[in-house]
Amino acid sequence: MKLYCFGESGHSYKAALALELAGLAWEPVFVDFFNGTTRGDAFRSDVNEMGECPVLIDGDVTLSQSGVIQQYLSETYGKFGGTTPEEKREVLRWQLWDNHKLSSNAGLCRFLMNFLPEDKRPAEVIAFLQGRLKAAYAVLDKHLEGRDWIVGESLTNADLTCCSYLYYPEPFGFDRKDYPNIDAWLSRLSALPGWKHPYDLMPGNPSDRA
Amino acid sequence: MKLYCFGESGHSYKAALALELAGLAWEPVFVDFFNGTTRGDAFRSDVNEMGECPVLIDGDVTLSQSGVIQQYLSETYGKFGGTTPEEKREVLRWQLWDNHKLSSNAGLCRFLMNFLPEDKRPAEVIAFLQGRLKAAYAVLDKHLEGRDWIVGESLTNADLTCCSYLYYPEPFGFDRKDYPNIDAWLSRLSALPGWKHPYDLMPGNPSDRA
Repeated sequence: MKLYCFGESGHSYKAALALELAGLAWEPVFVDFFNGTTRGDAFRSDVNEMGECPVLIDGDVTLSQSGVIQQYLSETYGKFGGTTPEEKREVLRWQLWDNHKLSSNAGLCRFLMNFLPEDKRPAEVIAFLQGRLKAAYAVLDKHLEGRDWIVGESLTNADLTCCSYLYYPEPFGFDRKDYPNIDAWLSRLSALPGWKHPYDLMPGNPSDRA
Repeated sequence: MKLYCFGESGHSYKAALALELAGLAWEPVFVDFFNGTTRGDAFRSDVNEMGECPVLIDGDVTLSQSGVIQQYLSETYGKFGGTTPEEKREVLRWQLWDNHKLSSNAGLCRFLMNFLPEDKRPAEVIAFLQGRLKAAYAVLDKHLEGRDWIVGESLTNADLTCCSYLYYPEPFGFDRKDYPNIDAWLSRLSALPGWKHPYDLMPGNPSDRA
């Protein structure tokens, strides 16, 4: 399998980490986001009309959106999807919530604060996103109280979705120490055999562009 | 079935419209969002820890996130879920994209522009969201070129998700005339037997608070 991705993309990391922790054979295809590849016509017409990473190629199947890729891997290879209809729905619930409230805003806020030129960083937008994110961190932290994993008794795509941006080193207003249940859960997850940091799992990272 | 919802909530509308167009028996439970109900401890502990509408109650099943509710209705009552594994994945792809790029930003932008006091409306954030939304409208408009529906040959949850905020009358920077394929698709959808405008389908609308 091939995954179009780049190291800075937390959305790609969700798919890459699922592939890696499931022990599947895959290779990354580096996408040069910072030089505009995903915004170009060729990428949109040939790879993903949405202009986004990740994109998974598995034989004649091409999939985009990390949640779709995760669900496809679960259905095809049997891991991380939840074990009952109730768990499967609960996994999807957290995937959708993450897309709406957590990763979307965390990824955007981190981009604005770290990957735009300093004189182009919109202070009001950044403060606004950080406020929205605080509410999201609080929801997740409370949910994790007394739980090892977001859904059921083991790792699922809900964890692999929500964790992604929270491992990146660039500042975006998130401090693990402020959210003890999130902190413990991130440590639990990164202690799993095969876990890798996004910059070790996918090609491309900020030092390449320094 | 009961749906916790309120008229101004486009996310609720996605579930309400699926229920209505599927011809299912349901009744709304009005949630007083503008007086803080969803942010209160009782709602979070008894209804939805995420502090959001919609929430569906079907017997002993309680579900939140409109995409989960739509998928549950499709699995249980057999409509709008897509007919093949490929279509089901494509429906999920657009639900996730909508949560990340379209409804999330449209709902937020509309809230900031219409439902906050005039002196509290953050101009830089609104302009930023409108810029993000233009890119999303363009993706959807291009996808709909030559298509009647977002996925396959008939109405699916992909349409019921992406359309929702686009029917509201309050301004948020979206003008149907600028996107002819979206415009035609919204007209196609609202011509379906049983279609109702959000303010006719769910209790609560801005005139109640005027």
